Amino acid sequence: MPVNLTAPDPATLLPVPGVRLGVTMAGVRKANRRDLTVIALDEGAAVAGVFTTNRFCAAPVQVCREHLAAGAAIRALVINTGNANAGTGADGLARARQTCEALAGLIGCQPQQVLPFSTGVIMETLPVDRIAAGLPGALAALQPANWGEAAAGIMTTDTLPKAASRRITLGGVPVTLTGISKGAGMIRPNMATMLGFVATDANIAPALLQPLVKEAADASFNRITIDGDTSTNDCFLLIASRQAQHAEITSLDSADAKTLRDALIALSQELAQAIVRDGEGATKFIAITIEGGRDEAECKLAAYAIAHSPLVKTAFFASDPNLGRILAAVGYAGITDLDQGLIDLHLDDVHVVTRGGRRPEYREEDGQRVMKQSEITIRVGLNRGTASATVWTCDLSHDYVTINADYRS
Amino acid sequence: MPVNLTAPDPATLLPVPGVRLGVTMAGVRKANRRDLTVIALDEGAAVAGVFTTNRFCAAPVQVCREHLAAGAAIRALVINTGNANAGTGADGLARARQTCEALAGLIGCQPQQVLPFSTGVIMETLPVDRIAAGLPGALAALQPANWGEAAAGIMTTDTLPKAASRRITLGGVPVTLTGISKGAGMIRPNMATMLGFVATDANIAPALLQPLVKEAADASFNRITIDGDTSTNDCFLLIASRQAQHAEITSLDSADAKTLRDALIALSQELAQAIVRDGEGATKFIAITIEGGRDEAECKLAAYAIAHSPLVKTAFFASDPNLGRILAAVGYAGITDLDQGLIDLHLDDVHVVTRGGRRPEYREEDGQRVMKQSEITIRVGLNRGTASATVWTCDLSHDYVTINADYRS
Repeated sequence: MPVNLTAPDPATLLPVPGVRLGVTMAGVRKANRRDLTVIALDEGAAVAGVFTTNRFCAAPVQVCREHLAAGAAIRALVINTGNANAGTGADGLARARQTCEALAGLIGCQPQQVLPFSTGVIMETLPVDRIAAGLPGALAALQPANWGEAAAGIMTTDTLPKAASRRITLGGVPVTLTGISKGAGMIRPNMATMLGFVATDANIAPALLQPLVKEAADASFNRITIDGDTSTNDCFLLIASRQAQHAEITSLDSADAKTLRDALIALSQELAQAIVRDGEGATKFIAITIEGGRDEAECKLAAYAIAHSPLVKTAFFASDPNLGRILAAVGYAGITDLDQGLIDLHLDDVHVVTRGGRRPEYREEDGQRVMKQSEITIRVGLNRGTASATVWTCDLSHDYVTINADYRS
Repeated sequence: MPVNLTAPDPATLLPVPGVRLGVTMAGVRKANRRDLTVIALDEGAAVAGVFTTNRFCAAPVQVCREHLAAGAAIRALVINTGNANAGTGADGLARARQTCEALAGLIGCQPQQVLPFSTGVIMETLPVDRIAAGLPGALAALQPANWGEAAAGIMTTDTLPKAASRRITLGGVPVTLTGISKGAGMIRPNMATMLGFVATDANIAPALLQPLVKEAADASFNRITIDGDTSTNDCFLLIASRQAQHAEITSLDSADAKTLRDALIALSQELAQAIVRDGEGATKFIAITIEGGRDEAECKLAAYAIAHSPLVKTAFFASDPNLGRILAAVGYAGITDLDQGLIDLHLDDVHVVTRGGRRPEYREEDGQRVMKQSEITIRVGLNRGTASATVWTCDLSHDYVTINADYRS
């Protein structure tokens, strides 16, 4: 059961001029599943992305990096579910390239102008023949209005599609941003998560896309975790079709760039948080804010230690205010000179700990009341500086174990 | 259900001359539980320990460090379950000191000659009055043969007591080592684990105890993990009563020192592995060996990444050879220049991965056969050096969630 998340209303998903999407059934792993998605980009589009830092990154991730580095204009993305094409060695790389070649042949471009994405089981051979056979069907289905279909087409253990749009005004002209994401387990993105795609028609200089996508990922996908497992296939991609009729944005310091950046970050956060809300077995959505740190890095250390602690996560599942587990996690987070005598802890509005010890005024029933909510904020004060950081996570329930013990069956 | 672990046979637990143990019911958290243990040491005993690196370390850990640093001869240890006295601020420190004062008054020594230990729920007030009231009963029960009772007396969520002995010969004289440990959850020791105690009557120079206990902890308790949560209360203590009638050991390079060290490491590993075998919800005992690393540190990084991955642990629970999850964990372990094209993976005798990809000869039924065992070795070859490291862990089951969602109720 996703936590306060519903399927997107198709009417709210705005087409992005210059971007068309098509989904089909290719039988990648099982028959009768919509498992192959193509996103076609008009000429003139620019693309930038961030990718997993997992050293066992999947073959398609390696090919994406190569093709983006080659600098040729990207004309299409091809995304399959059911198979991650990771842990597949040299053969997997060859199959990722064959996928690009097949699509390039059909749409009349170079293979380097295609980006491949895969998600699913690791260490199995990619059935490139079935994917190639499915491509004509995906191309025949291409439509600008297919964002909802694409969001559904890239799901694996997700229970709901994840998609959202924003509309802003740049230079007096309406500009659209629409994005989709997927993911529910193996989620601790370390550049971005498999898979997030945001497209806009903003007319922005291509060189500005990479810093923008990095900033958006750092503020969204790089702030979520479900189980601490950084996937082999994480990708977050920003597409600008550049068809909006405002003056080109050439500096990130301009007012228009700021408007675009704010909308992009808000959209990315919504898509990233949707992944947590749909986290495997999740029953609660938990925001963890660390304040008063010396720098953001130590705040993130403490926030992730809490977010990854199985003991904290099971306590939240049980609505049991066994909050000492939070202190223990802060203690082992790796802040080597931390003074426990300075620590504060709030659970929403309930002040639980002061100076490293339980407040005499704290009553367990107040903690219990907050723990029973489906949306909870944990706020820890380190009281040694002015930096802060927030990450988002979910609880650890029986269903997480069930889902991951049964994933392949 | 513990994994291939049974309660120790009392006949195999050898008394250590100079060490007496007594257990009683003090009603620390609940009535009618044997929750208070005293270990009394004859004059002449030497003690060294290693303690949690958790910065939110418990009050008794802080007091232990102080008392050991003060250098006065330790005459007694006092251990309560039911309450960790952690996250209790200045008040908790005062209560740990009061416990030492109460016991010192009863046995006629200074409070600095007493070491306090607590284990149980975090962030609750230690009932020092009930502990003090229980001390005379524990003292009245003191016996050299009470190691089994003490092993049971320090249990919390453990399902079985953990104790073992070794007998060696030093300088022609029989020498005994006997130890106990407890722990089943919040286990990722980072110096040692709460609680391990080993005593010997070996006549060893007190200055040699600290390097010995450190080496033993690094080879045993510092190589296990259940859930990655480093406790606030971890302690591993080595006691030498020094009553054996062989010539004093004055150098770690001597043959007798080596005999003692080997027995100590073997005993410590048995006690540490017993904690994993009794891990909360454990159904499998898993040894993870990383070979061919540039140094031991990177081997441990990869081993712990595998050992902490909820996805790997749930796959082992399900006996599902979804082994790509192991590759993913190696990939995000933090070895930043890892070349996935060099990686080998064995599951016991089954060679699964070569050069970063699945071996064509690998058959899923072979992986499945190993996964169904209760004892499994994962062996990863990095093929970039000659260092290696092994850690021990267990799987992640429904019972882990149940136990930790219900722990306080």
